[in-house]
Amino acid sequence: MNPQKIKQFVFTIALASFISGYSQVTVNQDRLEQRIFDLAKFGLQENGETERVAFSDANIEVNKWVISELTKMGLETHTDFAGNIVATRSGTKKNMKPIVFGSHIDRVPNGGNYDGCVGSMAALEVIQTLNENKIKTQHPLQVIIFSNEEGGVMGSRAIAGHLGKTAFGVKNSTGYSMGEGIMRLGGDTTRIAEVARKKGDVAAFLELHIEQGGTLEKENIEIGVVEGIVGLKWWDVEFTGFANHAGTTPMDARQDALLAAAKYIVAVNEITNSFEGAQVGTVGRIKANPGAPNVIPGKVVASLEIRDLSSDVIEKVFHAIKTKTEVIAASSNVQVEFHPLDTTADPAIMNSEIQKTIAESAKSLGLTFKYMPSGAGHDAQDMALIAPTGMIFVPSKGGISHSPKEFTSAKDMANGANVLLKTLLSMDKMVD
Amino acid sequence: MNPQKIKQFVFTIALASFISGYSQVTVNQDRLEQRIFDLAKFGLQENGETERVAFSDANIEVNKWVISELTKMGLETHTDFAGNIVATRSGTKKNMKPIVFGSHIDRVPNGGNYDGCVGSMAALEVIQTLNENKIKTQHPLQVIIFSNEEGGVMGSRAIAGHLGKTAFGVKNSTGYSMGEGIMRLGGDTTRIAEVARKKGDVAAFLELHIEQGGTLEKENIEIGVVEGIVGLKWWDVEFTGFANHAGTTPMDARQDALLAAAKYIVAVNEITNSFEGAQVGTVGRIKANPGAPNVIPGKVVASLEIRDLSSDVIEKVFHAIKTKTEVIAASSNVQVEFHPLDTTADPAIMNSEIQKTIAESAKSLGLTFKYMPSGAGHDAQDMALIAPTGMIFVPSKGGISHSPKEFTSAKDMANGANVLLKTLLSMDKMVD
Repeated sequence: MNPQKIKQFVFTIALASFISGYSQVTVNQDRLEQRIFDLAKFGLQENGETERVAFSDANIEVNKWVISELTKMGLETHTDFAGNIVATRSGTKKNMKPIVFGSHIDRVPNGGNYDGCVGSMAALEVIQTLNENKIKTQHPLQVIIFSNEEGGVMGSRAIAGHLGKTAFGVKNSTGYSMGEGIMRLGGDTTRIAEVARKKGDVAAFLELHIEQGGTLEKENIEIGVVEGIVGLKWWDVEFTGFANHAGTTPMDARQDALLAAAKYIVAVNEITNSFEGAQVGTVGRIKANPGAPNVIPGKVVASLEIRDLSSDVIEKVFHAIKTKTEVIAASSNVQVEFHPLDTTADPAIMNSEIQKTIAESAKSLGLTFKYMPSGAGHDAQDMALIAPTGMIFVPSKGGISHSPKEFTSAKDMANGANVLLKTLLSMDKMVD
Repeated sequence: MNPQKIKQFVFTIALASFISGYSQVTVNQDRLEQRIFDLAKFGLQENGETERVAFSDANIEVNKWVISELTKMGLETHTDFAGNIVATRSGTKKNMKPIVFGSHIDRVPNGGNYDGCVGSMAALEVIQTLNENKIKTQHPLQVIIFSNEEGGVMGSRAIAGHLGKTAFGVKNSTGYSMGEGIMRLGGDTTRIAEVARKKGDVAAFLELHIEQGGTLEKENIEIGVVEGIVGLKWWDVEFTGFANHAGTTPMDARQDALLAAAKYIVAVNEITNSFEGAQVGTVGRIKANPGAPNVIPGKVVASLEIRDLSSDVIEKVFHAIKTKTEVIAASSNVQVEFHPLDTTADPAIMNSEIQKTIAESAKSLGLTFKYMPSGAGHDAQDMALIAPTGMIFVPSKGGISHSPKEFTSAKDMANGANVLLKTLLSMDKMVD
């Protein structure tokens, strides 16, 4: 190579490096995984598993730790009126709206160490990597750790401006109502409205999350580019028969609410499977009253959850289930009522430009990726109502989630965090 | 009528009266019903219904009241080591074994005011009637109010000498285990064996009870003479699948323990109906874990109860259910285990001489009666193991039992108490 050629080559490398932004900057994989392990200590039980349902003492403690970590990184950090942790890193340009990213650290009962936690700890890791590399962004960056995601995406609903006060009465397994829980987290139920942001207040929202399904692992793909989040609806289905003595009431004289409910559970499965597509229908909760082995149940309440990327499909599946269940009830001499619950979410389509940017980021990092829907609800679903939103998935071992067996490797977490970092740096240049 | 004839007539009346014993003595119907109402105040809830599950505070309180009532009547009254209330009225002849009668005052969750209560309050009423009429019996009379009948005829099993210590760990809906409950009632788990009676220790046992079925009412018959009590067996059926996220786990990748349990519940009904005869099979209790609408249940425990007058039929129905359920589980990718519970009872045949005496007593009181089996288990079932035993049934309105709608009229209760009184007076003369 002659000197002229060398000069040209060096220039080309420098230009490529400039064009691709800070492509050489990557997160610290070990530090990211260590934070996941540190996080799992909050709520650690004697059996080695962690319990950290929203509003629990462990939730209060873990929030303190995260706030101290973010503060140490130099971010202005506070708890908002809905109990969200909000931490801001200033940008170089005036009047720019923040690029927001984050996830949640509350867990379902008997849940795992990765759901929500990966996106949250990756957000901290991204900030720390930017600090270490002295990278400034034009936009302010804002990390949000959303409150009570598992109990109905509470924190993100408040930010999207549609957390109704009726939700405040709903208790979770800690025994605290949502209203009481908000106060415990340091929020203020009377000032929830002040948390709401308008369209345009947020330049973009990004969430990294474990897939919680088995697709990426099965297909050996490193990054999922989320196209949209399925909508969901919940109902309580109430069967009213007649409680009677199990020894003295002949089989043909029974009004057995549990028998009708059992046939309904079978029907939910059969009907959900009878439609083409990827919709899912689940009965996860059931309560039979009075609930003694020697009494024919007089009342049973069973849940119903239906999810799909299309609201129409949810409605169609629901009506087929309802029609069939009414026939079951009538033939069992039992009454049935479907009570819609407050927990509903419309399908949310992710911003197509952000999808492309995520895909390009993955590609430039040499990672395999695929476009896919999210079967689970996420805070991104509500953030999509007020901001261009994107989601990045990393594989879940065995597709297991909402279980202590949840697992995502350090490599996969770091891949996700690197895609998050690269995407937000690209977006910092793209969006206003 | 000449003086001679009058004398002869008077003598004949007197003789008839003497032969029939104390045929003119009858119980106080209003007082009996009032005690039923008084009893229902123990455990009365704000909704107007009564809850008095064994070991509850209401159970402790009601026992104190019954002990004070029996003590007021002059009976030596105490709580035995199994928590039974035992009250003795001495007889006129030395070395005679007691004629025992009574029932229970604990209730199933969301139960009624008559099951067990009628036989218990009738026992008190019979004692009070004897006292008022200054009637002495040769045998000592003993009233027993059995502990925890609804949770597995605990008190009578202890007296029959076959309450195993393994039962002590079983919890009921109060949250107390049987062992803890015995202590609460004032018993002593370490001295249960001392409560056991041998064959010959009891001259006879009588129990008055509501029918808990619809036969007597439907056929307009006042008294049921019980021929035998069906046997029963309980199992806990445990389904183990895999708890997973209801949104991200495709329908065909689920190991849904509740779906398998639902198919099992349907199978219990179909298989029980598929055999000829009057056997009954019931699933009354179900618990799904973790029990959230958005989590596929990973574990479900559902009860199984089978009853019949023949132990062979119980076994046959059980094996058909077990075989079918194993097929269901395998095709649902779920494990199933049948755990037999300690609550079992062999069919019990009532003493034929006592049956005859009950029938004659009813006849002499001008009451209609019929011989019939008992579909429900009773303390009499275990007492039959150690003593000649008889049971008297009175009608249940609508055949309803184990429900707040349970009802038996004051007239029917008094009829039953009068048959009880007359039967025990006859037996006082018949047996040693």
